[in-house]
Amino acid sequence: MVSVVQVYEKPVLNNPVLIEGLPGIGFVANIASLHLIQELKAKLFAEIRLSSFQDIAITADDGKVRFPTNEFYYHKGRDKEERDLIILYGNTQALTTVGQYELCGRVLDLARDLGCNYMITLGGFRRDEKVTTPKLYCAASDTETVKEAVGLGAEIMEGQIFGVAGLLVGLSKLWNIKSFCLLSDTPGFYPDAEAAREILNAICKMLHLKVDTNRLDKAAETTREILGAFGISQPSQEEKPKEEEKSHPWHI
Amino acid sequence: MVSVVQVYEKPVLNNPVLIEGLPGIGFVANIASLHLIQELKAKLFAEIRLSSFQDIAITADDGKVRFPTNEFYYHKGRDKEERDLIILYGNTQALTTVGQYELCGRVLDLARDLGCNYMITLGGFRRDEKVTTPKLYCAASDTETVKEAVGLGAEIMEGQIFGVAGLLVGLSKLWNIKSFCLLSDTPGFYPDAEAAREILNAICKMLHLKVDTNRLDKAAETTREILGAFGISQPSQEEKPKEEEKSHPWHI
Amino acid sequence: MVSVVQVYEKPVLNNPVLIEGLPGIGFVANIASLHLIQELKAKLFAEIRLSSFQDIAITADDGKVRFPTNEFYYHKGRDKEERDLIILYGNTQALTTVGQYELCGRVLDLARDLGCNYMITLGGFRRDEKVTTPKLYCAASDTETVKEAVGLGAEIMEGQIFGVAGLLVGLSKLWNIKSFCLLSDTPGFYPDAEAAREILNAICKMLHLKVDTNRLDKAAETTREILGAFGISQPSQEEKPKEEEKSHPWHI
Amino acid sequence: MVSVVQVYEKPVLNNPVLIEGLPGIGFVANIASLHLIQELKAKLFAEIRLSSFQDIAITADDGKVRFPTNEFYYHKGRDKEERDLIILYGNTQALTTVGQYELCGRVLDLARDLGCNYMITLGGFRRDEKVTTPKLYCAASDTETVKEAVGLGAEIMEGQIFGVAGLLVGLSKLWNIKSFCLLSDTPGFYPDAEAAREILNAICKMLHLKVDTNRLDKAAETTREILGAFGISQPSQEEKPKEEEKSHPWHI
Repeated sequence: MVSVVQVYEKPVLNNPVLIEGLPGIGFVANIASLHLIQELKAKLFAEIRLSSFQDIAITADDGKVRFPTNEFYYHKGRDKEERDLIILYGNTQALTTVGQYELCGRVLDLARDLGCNYMITLGGFRRDEKVTTPKLYCAASDTETVKEAVGLGAEIMEGQIFGVAGLLVGLSKLWNIKSFCLLSDTPGFYPDAEAAREILNAICKMLHLKVDTNRLDKAAETTREILGAFGISQPSQEEKPKEEEKSHPWHI
Repeated sequence: MVSVVQVYEKPVLNNPVLIEGLPGIGFVANIASLHLIQELKAKLFAEIRLSSFQDIAITADDGKVRFPTNEFYYHKGRDKEERDLIILYGNTQALTTVGQYELCGRVLDLARDLGCNYMITLGGFRRDEKVTTPKLYCAASDTETVKEAVGLGAEIMEGQIFGVAGLLVGLSKLWNIKSFCLLSDTPGFYPDAEAAREILNAICKMLHLKVDTNRLDKAAETTREILGAFGISQPSQEEKPKEEEKSHPWHI
Repeated sequence: MVSVVQVYEKPVLNNPVLIEGLPGIGFVANIASLHLIQELKAKLFAEIRLSSFQDIAITADDGKVRFPTNEFYYHKGRDKEERDLIILYGNTQALTTVGQYELCGRVLDLARDLGCNYMITLGGFRRDEKVTTPKLYCAASDTETVKEAVGLGAEIMEGQIFGVAGLLVGLSKLWNIKSFCLLSDTPGFYPDAEAAREILNAICKMLHLKVDTNRLDKAAETTREILGAFGISQPSQEEKPKEEEKSHPWHI
Repeated sequence: MVSVVQVYEKPVLNNPVLIEGLPGIGFVANIASLHLIQELKAKLFAEIRLSSFQDIAITADDGKVRFPTNEFYYHKGRDKEERDLIILYGNTQALTTVGQYELCGRVLDLARDLGCNYMITLGGFRRDEKVTTPKLYCAASDTETVKEAVGLGAEIMEGQIFGVAGLLVGLSKLWNIKSFCLLSDTPGFYPDAEAAREILNAICKMLHLKVDTNRLDKAAETTREILGAFGISQPSQEEKPKEEEKSHPWHI
């Protein structure tokens, strides 16, 4: 077994937008996507297990085993305006570079199969300075989509985006999917509900989603518990400051 | 060659239970499964060799080469009550995460092909404190199976289960197999016959197996010899205390 | 997804020569091939993405995501003398040995499909001493091709050639492609336009290419910017002095 | 490309014996097999290139590129007594465990296709003490073959055999090939012609090969040159003393 993609239901969706929300810096994406799932009562329809996830199981009070997995949820817009969604949520990214590529390929295959041609990946942008109101940053697959992201109030990001959030945007063109990555300022070392709120507000407005962000702290708390139980450290950084890389590209 | 599954015989079994007994903490699973094989005169019917096992051979007094392998044995219940068994026994787990997933996938494929829909994985739960009477701990694939395991006198385990014992339980749902993991207290640093005895007593009662545990020390001694010859250190921990992981899930 | 080879156009070429120009020592190959592409207005026709490339995306001023990729360009000779070319250009080599073999296999498959039976790989030969006029060095797949390379004014190289530049020449025979590697002296720690100029002069003469090398500094500057943004350190050395390896072949 | 098996000629052989001679401890196997090839004028008929070999090329005086490869030679017995041979010779083993398994699988596939059902793997057994006359040691796939190896004057070996020499014997049963490993005492840190001579004398006698061992030093010298140029350190040990492993099988 190298990977298992289990599809429980094949939803019929109308031009859906995929929102990626795997663990990363400040667990911003994780919190935002979990909150969307809970508030929209999005429905689990598929699951991915990869041999490049950790080989562990964990148990909690109820004795039921939990394990590293990535799940797909869908939401059908409740009125004419609200967009259909595919939400990628999970407790891990792949542990290796090869695994990250495999994971992204599977996600893009599945998205294309459901008629998706637009994707938003989420993440945190670590700041050493104290963050008061988190700013948003964006990067996109193409010039047109850059403009749409900037229209959300995001600044154009300069630097490197690591992990699935960056890789999906980098690969999406090959699947004929347009995409942008939306990052929020965060100190990064705890599940950051405030950074997630900024991102949620922006994408809810763009996609005409009616979502109350009052219970965001609950999603942050759940995220803390789940990941704490797994002992999963952040699988990859979504962003690194540009300067430090500049010093060693010609080293051996 | 990535992996070879050699099937010597395809037994016809009646609703068999798979018992996993690969090397791990205190070699508890290894001793218990070897003892079952010897006492029940279970019959070898298949073998798995993976490219993620060690690339060595070892020799003993008789000059015949031994090598890293996983074997499948079967036992047909000797009366109406005694359950049919598939026993997974071996001298190694896979050396890599990807290999562990591949191994588990192969095991689950083979089990499903033989009509198995129930699995028990075994292991040790390392204790720093002195263990007088080993307690049992359990975790399961679903709520119903948690209850069955608790019915054996096991406490619900909280923490992480590493290696094949945990991974099989985590994956079994995708193969429509119910499963639980049964761990026994053990200091963990020697082949622990006493911990194996507790586990054997519990599962023999549950599965109505008539097995004498008097000769368990012999199985422990054989285990010591085989693994000593291979120079195999414990391939993975089945359990780690929960506290130490809690401190670093948000580190980079 | 393990790898994606995207072919945008299948050009009809007349006995084309493949020129390899991936990043390496002094980025000599990278500069030379970029300059060829720009001066000849060579046309992008295919792209390779491998799961053994880095899993990052980077963004610049315009917000558009860039990512690790290898591209193929073609040039059709503008007169009877000028040879048709396939130019392999990119911002990375594969990160692992297995990936390097996969990349080379893909490149050779694609080259053979287009009727290519001659290949020139480029690179830098690091010198600790100060380089005034860079000398050229060569190695080839067969004796006849050695002579052709020596005919360009190159000395026969002695030593090891790491990375795609060496591996392609080592493998080409199995694809019935003749090949040589052309290296130029370079201090190696910056994008070296002078080393690239020596190489370009030699291959342009051999292949009757009319290419102005005056704007080479621009290609070096672009190379510096692209690679700096990626934070990619040199993925592999094309050459190491022979002496240092000699000391440890029989160590354990 | 993961691996390329290039078959130049498919020889018709009569019950051939495969002799493995890849680099290892003291390069004993490498020297012995090279000598056999040279003295018997054995003919190259196939070649294996794996993505788990090193990704380098090296050049020597003549400018022709050399590269990591494994080659197959055959020899047809020159009289009724002399056995047909397949000789596996090369300048490397695979760099990873997975690669070693893949290599062995390919070798066994190819051997079986040519009607081979007997294999001898060669190697050195490192001794810290000074070796005056090297002793021979053996291990085999089955009891009958142990006897045949002991009949050559070899002692039964106790311990671990690493690398292809051990792995091939461990796997051969699954391909219905009987096999033994023949090791010779050696200090191990230089290409050891004396150890190779002991082994050659034994197998030539067994297989009724008429081979002069006077020029063995030449084979050792060639081995030294080839491997020195590649800068290849010994890819794996064929043997380790049994004691040191015994101390840590129950560690974590």
